[in-house]
Amino acid sequence: MDTLIYDGIIVTLDEIDTWYNPGYVFIKGNKIREVNSGQPPKELFSQAKKVIKASNKLVMPGLINNHTHAAMSLFRGLADDLPLDKWLDTYIFPIEKAFVNEEFTYWGTLLAGWEMIRSGTTCFADGYFCEDGAVKACLDLGIRAILAQGIIDFPAPGVLDPKKNILHAEQFLKKWQSVSELITPAVFAHAPYTCSDKTLKFAKKLADDYQTFFFIHVAETKWEVEEIKKTHGFTPLTYLYHLGILDQKTIIVHANWLTREEVNIIRDIGVKVVHCPESNLKLASGLSPVPELLDKNILVALGTDGCASNNNLDLFQEMNTCAKIHKGFSLDPTIMPAKTVLKMATVYPAQMFSLNIGVLKKGNFADLIIINFKQPHLFPFYNPYSHLVYAVHGTDIETVIINGKIIMEDKKLLGINSPKIKTNIYNLANKIKLHLSPNH
Amino acid sequence: MDTLIYDGIIVTLDEIDTWYNPGYVFIKGNKIREVNSGQPPKELFSQAKKVIKASNKLVMPGLINNHTHAAMSLFRGLADDLPLDKWLDTYIFPIEKAFVNEEFTYWGTLLAGWEMIRSGTTCFADGYFCEDGAVKACLDLGIRAILAQGIIDFPAPGVLDPKKNILHAEQFLKKWQSVSELITPAVFAHAPYTCSDKTLKFAKKLADDYQTFFFIHVAETKWEVEEIKKTHGFTPLTYLYHLGILDQKTIIVHANWLTREEVNIIRDIGVKVVHCPESNLKLASGLSPVPELLDKNILVALGTDGCASNNNLDLFQEMNTCAKIHKGFSLDPTIMPAKTVLKMATVYPAQMFSLNIGVLKKGNFADLIIINFKQPHLFPFYNPYSHLVYAVHGTDIETVIINGKIIMEDKKLLGINSPKIKTNIYNLANKIKLHLSPNH
Repeated sequence: MDTLIYDGIIVTLDEIDTWYNPGYVFIKGNKIREVNSGQPPKELFSQAKKVIKASNKLVMPGLINNHTHAAMSLFRGLADDLPLDKWLDTYIFPIEKAFVNEEFTYWGTLLAGWEMIRSGTTCFADGYFCEDGAVKACLDLGIRAILAQGIIDFPAPGVLDPKKNILHAEQFLKKWQSVSELITPAVFAHAPYTCSDKTLKFAKKLADDYQTFFFIHVAETKWEVEEIKKTHGFTPLTYLYHLGILDQKTIIVHANWLTREEVNIIRDIGVKVVHCPESNLKLASGLSPVPELLDKNILVALGTDGCASNNNLDLFQEMNTCAKIHKGFSLDPTIMPAKTVLKMATVYPAQMFSLNIGVLKKGNFADLIIINFKQPHLFPFYNPYSHLVYAVHGTDIETVIINGKIIMEDKKLLGINSPKIKTNIYNLANKIKLHLSPNH
Repeated sequence: MDTLIYDGIIVTLDEIDTWYNPGYVFIKGNKIREVNSGQPPKELFSQAKKVIKASNKLVMPGLINNHTHAAMSLFRGLADDLPLDKWLDTYIFPIEKAFVNEEFTYWGTLLAGWEMIRSGTTCFADGYFCEDGAVKACLDLGIRAILAQGIIDFPAPGVLDPKKNILHAEQFLKKWQSVSELITPAVFAHAPYTCSDKTLKFAKKLADDYQTFFFIHVAETKWEVEEIKKTHGFTPLTYLYHLGILDQKTIIVHANWLTREEVNIIRDIGVKVVHCPESNLKLASGLSPVPELLDKNILVALGTDGCASNNNLDLFQEMNTCAKIHKGFSLDPTIMPAKTVLKMATVYPAQMFSLNIGVLKKGNFADLIIINFKQPHLFPFYNPYSHLVYAVHGTDIETVIINGKIIMEDKKLLGINSPKIKTNIYNLANKIKLHLSPNH
């Protein structure tokens, strides 16, 4: 649908950080046709099938959430403030074992996608099990996604025999590789301490065979560093380097504990990094040396991680935390300025995934969001970047357009049946509650 | 007005952490008359002048923001990501000098109060200049507040002659001490490095004479610690101790750099502490040892600080950051659990200011908020404390009641003229913009 958005504050995030107030965006089909300052020429009003007046609103590229386990939204608030081993062994693992199947992943991803769209995310990268359900949910939602089937050397949801984990992932890639321009199937090897060297190599080869991305959690905790050193004689990133599975399509998630040499390896090879500050803080895992990585021109993108460890998927809040936490840790108020952090959720991940999104410019896919700036927490208005990172809430988003299609308008998701989603979520959550406290 | 709220999730925050689902609250006049589980008896429906059905909503005590400079909301996003001295000397101080007067404080506090009420804050502690304007704004808003007139040994807005700063503060206390049960006038000495020892002692004596609270920024930055050591031979808190101005009505703000002995002084004397994690992170000032303070039963309450250094007044976001940041710094995921952090914005400050608020119980003032839980980022629901700290946004608040009066309903503030506020804010912000870039 051809759409004209006019009279808004337009933040393009292009190479020279152009922003207009007022300006307009014209969308033709699924792509951006024109972005400009001032009022649009009259003919655009007649060409557009839909016209949106964006006075007192800000228009910008949709955010990209670069790491989550979407279906785990069904575990939001189930267990918090616990030691990692108790959290995993008493809550997360047993409940995953008892509940996660394709249906669970479908409803969980619908819930997550609903929350993400609602808070301005138009594209996300996911890694989980029974990921067929995630593909189906994303197709129903109309959200852009990189969906990676999980691989782990334990019996996992959907793959009870670990020997079949690579085979299962291959079936996933084959099945969905051409399903939609919105969906990129990929591979997610859980971690160096849960996959053998053989599994890691096979998993990476599989990703290469399908010319897709290979995600892996790396160097999340101090414990992991010690464990991998003990087992393999190297710190985690160096271990993966020696396995030969690092390249430009390898995306390492967390990367909290890196040596200086490992930072150089990442830069030299062109490995990509995803930073999840809120999850890392909440689980007390550590903090990635992001300012240093960015200084070396390494591509770093932002992720919320799953809801079980965050406990929300709001990238606006994640940007706020990201900008502040590195200042606080380093005692330097000038690092991680707002504009840089904003790019970690837009421009950088678009480059990371070679997708023509993340910048409002002619020819890019029309993935964009409109934010209501007429609210007390956004008064007065001096500078768009500051407000976007330090003051906007995910709940301020009014309209979301993905691939040229209006997915949310006036905070209401179009094309999803929210009562049906809610009923299914209630039922699943009640079963989980009963499982945890059978006498209640 | 007598109000009945029923069929909600009621979080009381009482001594035994009672919560009901469903439950009800009955308000008579300005006080809570009954809090209970299940459905209310029929007679309450007929006694109530206003009945609110709170299905799928959560009812809890209003939050208390324990440190801000409300009028500085007019500087939101004006300048960020700068070294502290440049931020202060190039932006904040010259603009304060050029613009802050009683009218500025009035409109700035209206804006801040609007944002705070909108995000579930029903009481706040403020410290700024020309604080008469803040009193007038709070009376217009109907918000509960502890408003402290600033004292500093420099020419300040409203007190160009520093020799008159104590006199000016005394006039403020005298003028407003009995104006309303909602307003507590108090004294705010800016910091040990901006007030002489004489000024500090006079300011504390003034607070004592009026039996009110004495606020002071203490040990915010490493620079301050070195400066006070150089000038007075002690670290900041110890210096104040030797001046004899610490007691149970002294509220120290920030307290980021404390020695072990100073923690013991705070505990032994019963000094109160306000923690502003987001401001401290953003300005890269340091981090208060809050888990240690709480372990020693010191009363610690949460504050947002002013908008110029945060850049919002959303206490829900502040709680989220507070719960996560201490876990991240200490690498211990069990410290600062959700319930503790929630009490730092409700129960503890109520005790700090000896106000009968912060807990939903019979006899307390009816300061409470209703939160819409029927939203994707709050599904599913396992545990109220987790959601309140880790998932709720300030923008989720629907209804706010202060002193028994409905101040906000369906997200709309009653009794304020928001277009008039907006016009005045626009005009002030435009003047500031022009002042900063006269050629634009």
